[in-house]
Amino acid sequence: MKLANLVGLRFKEKPADCVIDSHTFSVRGGYIKNVSNGIYSLYPPMKRVTAKIEAIIRDEMDACDSQEVLFPVALPGSLWEESGRYESVGKELLRFEDRSGAKMVLGMTHEEAAVQLVREYGSTYAKYPFSIYQIQTKFRDEARPRAGLIRVREFTMKDAYSFHTSQEDLEQYYARMANAYDRIFERAGIPEVVSVKSDSGMIGGSVSHEYMLLVDAGEDSIVLCPECGYSANMEAADTTADNSGVSPMQDLEKVYTPHQKTIEDVCNYLNSRTEESCKAVIYQKNSDDSYVIVFIRGDYEINETKLTNLLKDKVHPAEISEDSGIVPGFCGPYNQHANCTVIYDRTLEGIESLCAGANEPDYHYIGLNIKRDIGDVEYVDVAKIRTGDICPCCGKKSIKISRGIEVGNIFQLGTKYSKSMGMTYIDENGGEQIPIMGCYGIGVGRLAASVMEAKHDNYGPVWPISIAPWQVHLCCMRVDDAECKAAADKLYAALQAKGVEVLYDDRDIRAGAMFADADLLGVPVRVVVGPKNLKNGQVEMVTRDKRYSALVDYDNAVAEVQAMIEKLFAEINENVKERI
Amino acid sequence: MKLANLVGLRFKEKPADCVIDSHTFSVRGGYIKNVSNGIYSLYPPMKRVTAKIEAIIRDEMDACDSQEVLFPVALPGSLWEESGRYESVGKELLRFEDRSGAKMVLGMTHEEAAVQLVREYGSTYAKYPFSIYQIQTKFRDEARPRAGLIRVREFTMKDAYSFHTSQEDLEQYYARMANAYDRIFERAGIPEVVSVKSDSGMIGGSVSHEYMLLVDAGEDSIVLCPECGYSANMEAADTTADNSGVSPMQDLEKVYTPHQKTIEDVCNYLNSRTEESCKAVIYQKNSDDSYVIVFIRGDYEINETKLTNLLKDKVHPAEISEDSGIVPGFCGPYNQHANCTVIYDRTLEGIESLCAGANEPDYHYIGLNIKRDIGDVEYVDVAKIRTGDICPCCGKKSIKISRGIEVGNIFQLGTKYSKSMGMTYIDENGGEQIPIMGCYGIGVGRLAASVMEAKHDNYGPVWPISIAPWQVHLCCMRVDDAECKAAADKLYAALQAKGVEVLYDDRDIRAGAMFADADLLGVPVRVVVGPKNLKNGQVEMVTRDKRYSALVDYDNAVAEVQAMIEKLFAEINENVKERI
Repeated sequence: MKLANLVGLRFKEKPADCVIDSHTFSVRGGYIKNVSNGIYSLYPPMKRVTAKIEAIIRDEMDACDSQEVLFPVALPGSLWEESGRYESVGKELLRFEDRSGAKMVLGMTHEEAAVQLVREYGSTYAKYPFSIYQIQTKFRDEARPRAGLIRVREFTMKDAYSFHTSQEDLEQYYARMANAYDRIFERAGIPEVVSVKSDSGMIGGSVSHEYMLLVDAGEDSIVLCPECGYSANMEAADTTADNSGVSPMQDLEKVYTPHQKTIEDVCNYLNSRTEESCKAVIYQKNSDDSYVIVFIRGDYEINETKLTNLLKDKVHPAEISEDSGIVPGFCGPYNQHANCTVIYDRTLEGIESLCAGANEPDYHYIGLNIKRDIGDVEYVDVAKIRTGDICPCCGKKSIKISRGIEVGNIFQLGTKYSKSMGMTYIDENGGEQIPIMGCYGIGVGRLAASVMEAKHDNYGPVWPISIAPWQVHLCCMRVDDAECKAAADKLYAALQAKGVEVLYDDRDIRAGAMFADADLLGVPVRVVVGPKNLKNGQVEMVTRDKRYSALVDYDNAVAEVQAMIEKLFAEINENVKERI
Repeated sequence: MKLANLVGLRFKEKPADCVIDSHTFSVRGGYIKNVSNGIYSLYPPMKRVTAKIEAIIRDEMDACDSQEVLFPVALPGSLWEESGRYESVGKELLRFEDRSGAKMVLGMTHEEAAVQLVREYGSTYAKYPFSIYQIQTKFRDEARPRAGLIRVREFTMKDAYSFHTSQEDLEQYYARMANAYDRIFERAGIPEVVSVKSDSGMIGGSVSHEYMLLVDAGEDSIVLCPECGYSANMEAADTTADNSGVSPMQDLEKVYTPHQKTIEDVCNYLNSRTEESCKAVIYQKNSDDSYVIVFIRGDYEINETKLTNLLKDKVHPAEISEDSGIVPGFCGPYNQHANCTVIYDRTLEGIESLCAGANEPDYHYIGLNIKRDIGDVEYVDVAKIRTGDICPCCGKKSIKISRGIEVGNIFQLGTKYSKSMGMTYIDENGGEQIPIMGCYGIGVGRLAASVMEAKHDNYGPVWPISIAPWQVHLCCMRVDDAECKAAADKLYAALQAKGVEVLYDDRDIRAGAMFADADLLGVPVRVVVGPKNLKNGQVEMVTRDKRYSALVDYDNAVAEVQAMIEKLFAEINENVKERI
């Protein structure tokens, strides 16, 4: 199409509310328009990008024998009551009433709708396994939408649901889906996406993986081991502190530490190492406000999600009452008589001689040996993993924490939804069984924005050919030059005749403005028709990523452009895994 | 794909709540699943049908230079306040609040979102004309959803919006869109759709057309003239009664008509024709409850939409108070002294001698001549048109009323939305102007269901090849016969290799059950592989519509099937108009 007719404005000024590059370019390039907080309309270029992403996703889902269906956006509240999520999910679930006063919700995921669709179909083992997916609008009433399409309230999502008669079968299918996910990101031009073990949060289930695109602007932290390829999210990564080379065992001794309330202050005051100190972090359980004391190595922090998962209860920082028996600032494991849950983080394991609170104002112990002085305790993992920690996989001190955007996730759901919603099937022996489920999501708009975040320069996005809004950006540099215009027009027609997706700029504007627009639209192959090169029977062909630049014969330009498109596709496909 | 794996159940029993065939087959054939009142999930076969319809629509919209965008489903109430529709639209607009208490609505059409998207883009005449469209989920909180996908609350719709600088330009584009609409229905296999002039109702604007598929189960009435091709909806059709051959003028005479309150009773009592009587129908305006008396020929009814449009006010049947001056049952034009709006329908025009109420209990006039006895009155058209009425176009007594389903509509909106929402552009002379809009809608699911309603037999839908869920339904009649199974398997692979969309039934079930499922799935070309024909090296190829049936050589079956698919496509394409 002609750029002159493309709906949407492009401009130079950075919008004030844009803090990450993909958001900036999405607005400056005429890709999106804000309609309300976290709600956007898509202009044609972004609609074209998302359509291509959807086509890739459909192809990979179909290859996994998943069948496309469509669930409603507006769902009856009663369906979510069946699963218990009507009550359990917070305000991000948008609840409302229809004209008759019936409870409704806007679907944020569709496990309930999936079970409702196939509950009768899946009533006998012979139908299993099966898998369904949809690409549909979802709504999640985020408190703080931000970063353009990265975190929105309304979004287009592919969500798939699989149904199995055994855990083994689920795991087999889960592996196929994981492979499809790898392929989707590879085909979309971001093979660098890593899959990490994750905490499955609200959705439930046990094993799950998040697909993370590592970019500095990412809102999530990801744990990686460059040595062995281990990856996990912060909640799922086991923290192993390096306690080699600690001081030998010493006698227990109570020391006066006046007004030294933080572990850093105490260690400083005593001239000892925080790595050999024991910090107490005190919480209260949300359910009954009872106290939870976590003892952890002084230089580590608590990962509260790990703690919540361990306690099966949410917690909040404690307000310590006078009658609690806890001595704030001087709390320690030895002579601890408060009536509360006591947890030992395993960062303490292996330290022979600790500095810790004495449960008495202005006093600490030094030389504390947990095994000798307290006895056998159970060490658990509730510590926040840090760069340089020991990799739980290869054992090297190689852990690295990176920032990333979650571009997809897959879950082994188990029977959470099938059980609560009464879905059963008759097995080979006539017995009644509950099917096991998996679910698999990708946010389409977020993926588009993430690619933009990972692939851009200072001037705009550098779209991979596979999801670019157009394949070729054709610039006519002099529309007032009849020969130049005719040559460009003819090339436009010839490329279109070959099925090439061409955006044609034949506006009578300055070269600088023309190229600025081209940069913002990020089309991979640019063909520039100008009078000077035309005199030599040539046009310029450059790629948006600047890796290729050449003068090609005008008469051969169509073939050269087609070859370049093929080359760019081939480069992407080289990185795509085989299907399993 | 294999039918054995197709998600969804097919069954024989007619569901109790299905009153029209397309709804019955949609449920019985495993196409849709009810989730809530007027809200459905789509199973794979229906998703495949709607995807093909969407592809046809996209193709035709693109050919009209309309650019695909995406608007949100959940819209801020403030946007609808700008246009005034937040207040003016009834309960079918679903209003709710988000977590912060902000007013939201679920989009039922997207005029406001369209203006919001292009308000800045369209600020100069040089950008015009332009057109945008989306295919997106919409919600309309219908009081009485019914008939499966025909009238639902949530639906997928294509809606396009065009922007122009002159009425002429809009009309030119409107004609292109009308042509595209014709082509869409023709390509979807229902060339019999007629476009009718319509009342544009809530959307506003002046000229508009509805595309109606004529089926007995339709919920709308359509006025057609088989003589000249005139068509209109009931509101838009001018009613012209046949008053030729009426009795000559007579003297006015008051007659005693005790207890004869309806015009039929009176005419019966007086032994006169209702065709020469004047009936009074009495309403009250919704705005101020003032009375409106409509005088109309005794055998005609009022079309209340026509009356509402005339009065620019809604009306309700009157509750006649004693001090109104109106004499119920004996109300007539002569000696009418009540303080109210009086309307003369033009069905009365040309009648020389009327029977009418005398505004006095138990008395009527006969021989009433309006011109002589009342004077010059203005005749207006508020009558419901009837079969046999005079065609407003060709003047013949040929009007026919048919039932139909509205499968699309197009509107010349004018400046209703651009004006209220402050969209302006600078014209060639530097002046500020308001753009003129058109809008163009098609319900995707309704179209699918409508095709099913128009194209079915007693056993299921007969899908046109262009939108069928699959092109070929391959039946292996004897899976326990190794040779038969191998031959069918090979044919399945060979057809797929050629890109043919095949649904393969290799289940070990009775032929009757197999064919019943095939009928419900309505796939146009059926290939039956059975041991008997295979002995002669043949397979059976029949079309779902039973027009073609042949034994073809097994070795040539792929080519024969491809030729049949081409033939079926060609038959459809023969009926498709040229693009204008």
